[in-house]
Order: sequence, then structure tokens, then C-alpha cells
Amino acid sequence: MTDRIMNFLRDTRPEGPCLVVDLEVVRENYIRFAKAMPDSRIFYAVKANPAPEILSLLAGLGSNFDCASVQEIDMALAAGATPDRISFGNTIKKERDVAAAHARGVTMYAVDCEAEVDKIARSAPGARVYCRILCDGDGAEWALSRKFGCEPAMAIDVLDHAHRSGLVAYGVSFHVGSQQKNPRAWDQALASSAEIFRTLSYRGIELKMVNLGGGFATRYLEDIPEEGEYGHEINESIRAHFGNRIPETIIEPGRGMVGNAGVIKTEVILVSQKAQDDIRWVYLDIGKFNGLAETMDEAIRYPITSSRGGDATPCILAGPTCDSVDVMYEKKPYPLPVSLEIGDELFIGGTGAYTTTYSAIAFNGFPPLASYVI
Amino acid sequence: MTDRIMNFLRDTRPEGPCLVVDLEVVRENYIRFAKAMPDSRIFYAVKANPAPEILSLLAGLGSNFDCASVQEIDMALAAGATPDRISFGNTIKKERDVAAAHARGVTMYAVDCEAEVDKIARSAPGARVYCRILCDGDGAEWALSRKFGCEPAMAIDVLDHAHRSGLVAYGVSFHVGSQQKNPRAWDQALASSAEIFRTLSYRGIELKMVNLGGGFATRYLEDIPEEGEYGHEINESIRAHFGNRIPETIIEPGRGMVGNAGVIKTEVILVSQKAQDDIRWVYLDIGKFNGLAETMDEAIRYPITSSRGGDATPCILAGPTCDSVDVMYEKKPYPLPVSLEIGDELFIGGTGAYTTTYSAIAFNGFPPLASYVI
Repeated sequence: MTDRIMNFLRDTRPEGPCLVVDLEVVRENYIRFAKAMPDSRIFYAVKANPAPEILSLLAGLGSNFDCASVQEIDMALAAGATPDRISFGNTIKKERDVAAAHARGVTMYAVDCEAEVDKIARSAPGARVYCRILCDGDGAEWALSRKFGCEPAMAIDVLDHAHRSGLVAYGVSFHVGSQQKNPRAWDQALASSAEIFRTLSYRGIELKMVNLGGGFATRYLEDIPEEGEYGHEINESIRAHFGNRIPETIIEPGRGMVGNAGVIKTEVILVSQKAQDDIRWVYLDIGKFNGLAETMDEAIRYPITSSRGGDATPCILAGPTCDSVDVMYEKKPYPLPVSLEIGDELFIGGTGAYTTTYSAIAFNGFPPLASYVI
Repeated sequence: MTDRIMNFLRDTRPEGPCLVVDLEVVRENYIRFAKAMPDSRIFYAVKANPAPEILSLLAGLGSNFDCASVQEIDMALAAGATPDRISFGNTIKKERDVAAAHARGVTMYAVDCEAEVDKIARSAPGARVYCRILCDGDGAEWALSRKFGCEPAMAIDVLDHAHRSGLVAYGVSFHVGSQQKNPRAWDQALASSAEIFRTLSYRGIELKMVNLGGGFATRYLEDIPEEGEYGHEINESIRAHFGNRIPETIIEPGRGMVGNAGVIKTEVILVSQKAQDDIRWVYLDIGKFNGLAETMDEAIRYPITSSRGGDATPCILAGPTCDSVDVMYEKKPYPLPVSLEIGDELFIGGTGAYTTTYSAIAFNGFPPLASYVI
């Protein structure tokens, strides 16, 4: 909670639950990433929070943009990014969306199979493609499935196919898992990447780039490594695996860029028990369907503060909808002040990323999460 | 898939994923419920699908409405329902929302604790309240948590408190779990309800109503009981537990009213493998974040058809976003035609309920699920 956010909430007193993002924190995050990894270009993952004010700030600071859809490409362009600063990073694209991106001047695309290469060869001829490889997400709070990427052995064929299809076989990407707290997690994927570079080089195809993805943790409840530590470990791994043929690198921070810049203000609607002497249930005006989707399986545990002091007691924390799955913390109840009352405000930190856009359009008739960027 | 939906999709060819709801099926469902449970009033659970055309049809047929928020109350009123046909069925309400409902003439409210009774006594004086009791959801595909309701012993105190606060202690409600396939699931909750009626009657408080909730299954992949069977079993239980003092009953079908009336049209964006001879991944332009939220934990398995014939092979089915959890069926892969190709259309049945409103407002830049009611 920054002073700017506190002052905004005090002066504006917005009705209903809302996210407030402090652009000064986003600016500091950008500068920290740039310092920690001076040899990498930064591609902000727009999906984390596409608020126009955030995109404009980052465009002005020199950021590039990782976009998941044509709509996100248009948002990045509207914020002042030029097409050469945009990567269409979704490996799952309709061919007409590839054509739309191509028409807007976008020249870099993610792939993870030959069928996707074929779409790009037809609809964005001459483009650069990078192939995403599978990577195990050990150490991440939000481990990735096998949804994106292929086995490294197959990536060689995919990039070879791209080359033979008239595209620029440009590099390799991977993602070590969101909210990754182990800086050494990048090492194994970098070893696989270097092997792909070498194999294709024997075939006369010189890859140029490694996309290190995202996964840079924001601060929730537990201490996380500083950006400088990520940079150090990653550079060590790159030198170890690539020797003196250091590739271009890019990073795609999303949560790490905006997560700690945002605070959600919420109101306690009800405090109750199911039976005498039973655990307390605390119901908020925000839940899984209007901003806190990432509490799914209690994966992410946000820091929550209130103006109440005194002893705390474990509570089950739930959202306002008539949906029984709209419960944030139940398996591991959340300690909240005993003195907490209906009508109190709570502040949920670390919520600048993956909250507003996940919000349901009208579930139970409730509006999506309001957002203020200051 | 009804002929009307098929003709609509053939003639209109809407771009992008969309839900099409056939009002004729909704009408038939309403009539079936009314016939199966002629002694119960029907309160349609608006949250299942609040499309204005659906609400207007049901209002015209004589339905009442179970609303989760003031916004849903306004939608029901706009559709032609009078306030006496509306129940504010969410046990978690801001007091200012209770006041707003009261101002609109709504006189029936759900509660499950004394603090909620206090809000209603202050802001909707004289209203009728019913207390929700906990009920184990065995037999439901989407088992309910303990989020709503209190232990039956506490419900007696809550209703007594309502009576002493100047409210009308009106009845008891419970919910046997969504998509409940065991018609006998209502029996135990009815036994608890009858016990609450008797205990309060000794204290001079005469409850009048049992709200049997929802849970009436729609047809997904497995056979489910017909509405008539539900009615028969429930009536048997009511007679067994209430003897000759049969209470008023209401039911709150949501999924059972609209689920089988809707079909989602989606397009195959990509078919790929992660390695040679590996299982096929099929990526659609719809996923967990733009309509299929209820595939969470693979809880609901929708019937999916395509125009392709021939052999089928198990596939992992995933959505279009850059989110690794956006995978619908993976633990239990889904059989789809071997001949399936990029660009093919698929039709996902049983999707009239809990799809459009769960849709994220803009995740990855993708728009919420489009909806056509015909």
C-alpha cells in the first residue's frame, strides 16, 4: 500500500470494490528490470493488466509488448508502441488473426508446432518465429501445464520447417511458471535452448534469440528474490550453456511489472458462523468472479490488511456471489482481526496483475472489478 | 441441438464463439417443471442465464424469480415481474442493497445468520425471511461447500431472532447441490426442515414455506432423472416428514430451466502434439475464461459434436488464452474425430446455463461470450 494509493482511497472514497494501481511503482519495477537484466529487451505481458495508462507509461519508458490477441496488439499500438516492439506471443492463433497482426506490421510470432508455422507462412510471410519448448515449472506457485510448447526435439523440426517455409527461424522461448521463486529454474530450459541452437546451426540455420518468458515473482506473503538475483543467475546459465555465442534475450514480465503496484479495496459484507463456536466466515464484496480468480485452489495468498488492530483469528474468506466455489481461503484459513465487523474495509495487496481482466462480465449481476490507475 | 439453433447458425453464420439459446426449449422446460411439481411455485434462478429474452418469456409464463443482487432484481422487474414474484436469495447482502430491494417492493429475503437478520430488520422492516440450512451435496456433480446455510439447530435461533425483530419468520431453504442426479437427495434436508417447523411451532412461530432450491439436473453426457421423478420423490418425502401439515414449497431451477436450451458454437484453432506419437491437443476459440468456467476440475463434461464422422481418438481440449489453466479436459481426455481439422466447427451442448455470465470481461483481450436468444 503506497501513500499515493492510500491518499487516493481516502480522498475519492470509491463505492464498491476496486483496484487502484500506482504508476510510480510500475515505473520503479520497469527500471529495476532494466537494471537487473541490461542485456535483455523487456516485453511487458499485456494480459497481466492492459490498463491504457500502464501501457502508455511503459511505451514511453521504451518497453516492448507481449500480446496474446489482436485486441491486445491494438491496445499496445494505441499506447504508442510501434509494431516492431510487439510480439504476438500466443502459440494458439486463428489464421485470420495472424493476417490481422501482419497487416498491422507485427513481425514476431510464437509457435509450438508445424501447423501454426503453416498459418504464419501463409498469412505473415517473412515473419520471425520463435518456438516455445516445454519446461517443468518446479518452484512456481502457479505451475504451468503442458498446454504451451513442445518437446525440445520437436522444436528443432518446427524451426527447420519454418526456415523451409520462408520464415525467419528466430529463436526459442519457454516459461518457467508464474510467480517462480527459484532463480535457478531457468537453467535447464537454457540448456535445452542451447542444444536447439547448436543442432540447427549444423543445418545452417542460425537462431538469434532466447525468450526467457515471465515468471518473475511479485511480492505476496512470502519473501521473493530481487530482480538482480534473477539477472545474475540467468546470466550465469546463459554463459554456461551458450559459451561465447551469447544470444539476444528478451523477458516477458507481467506479474513482476504490475503485481505489487496494485491494491484492491473491499468491504466486509458479513461475518458469521455455521454453528456455535464454529470457525468464522468472512464474506467480502470481491471474490473469485470479480477479481480474485487466482485464489483458485488457494494458489496465491495475497497479503490482506485492515485498520483494525488486536488479536487475529483464522477465518474462511469468501466472495459475494451465490456460487459455492466462490471461496478464496478455506483449506488454509486466513487470520483476520477478531474485532473485524460488517462494513469494515480490507486492503488486498499484490493485486495489480491478473485481477481486472479475469473479472466476470456480470456473474450474479455484479459488475466487473472497477480499476483506477493513478 | 435443435433445428431452430441449427438453422440460425446456418443462416446467420456468426463470427467467433457464441451461445445460441432456443426459447422453445426453455418454454418446454418451464411447462415440465410446472407439471412435475404442480404444488410448488417456480422461482427461476436468474444467475443461470439473465438474458432479457429468457426473463421475459418466463415472466409471461408466470414464473417467479430468485435474484442474487439488486442488478438481477432490476432485470427481473424490467422483464415484467412484479416485486411480489421476486426473492432476494443471496444470504450475503450489503445492507444498502437490502434497502434498495426494499425500496423496489421486494418482501422475501434469504438469511443464514442473525447478523443478516439484523440488516433486514433495519432496512426492510416487516419482510419475510427464510433461513438456509446446510445440506450435504452427495450425488451432485457440483457439490456445494459450506458457504451458504447454517446448521439446522442454529437456524431455529436465527428464525426466532427474525420473529423477535419484527420480521416474518417464513421458512427454510436448502440446496442439494447443482446438477443433482439423485432424486432422494432432498429427503434428509426435508427431515431437518420439518424438525425446525415443529420446534418453532412449539414456540408459537408458524413457518409457512420450504424452499427446495435448485439442483435439477440438465442433460449433459449421462442420463438424468426426468422432472416427474424428482416431483414424485420430493412429494413422498414431504408427506413423510410433514404429515398433514404440508408447507408451501418453492423451487429454484436455473440449470434445469435453461441448460439444455443452449448450444455453443466454437472453432478449432489448432490441433497439435507435444512430441511424436503423443496425445493430440485440440485448441478451441472458447475456454475456461470465455464461457466454459464450469469445466473447472473437469466437473462438468459437456456433449460435443462435429460434422466430421469416422473414428474418434482421445484429445486434450484447451482454450485460446495464454493461461496454462485454460484447459477443459485433460485428466480425462475427450474423444474427438481423428479427421478433425483446424477451422472445423464444434457444437457444445447443454451450455445454456452458467456460461455467458461467468465469461471474463477481457482476459487476453478476448471479448466475453456472444449470446443469441432465438
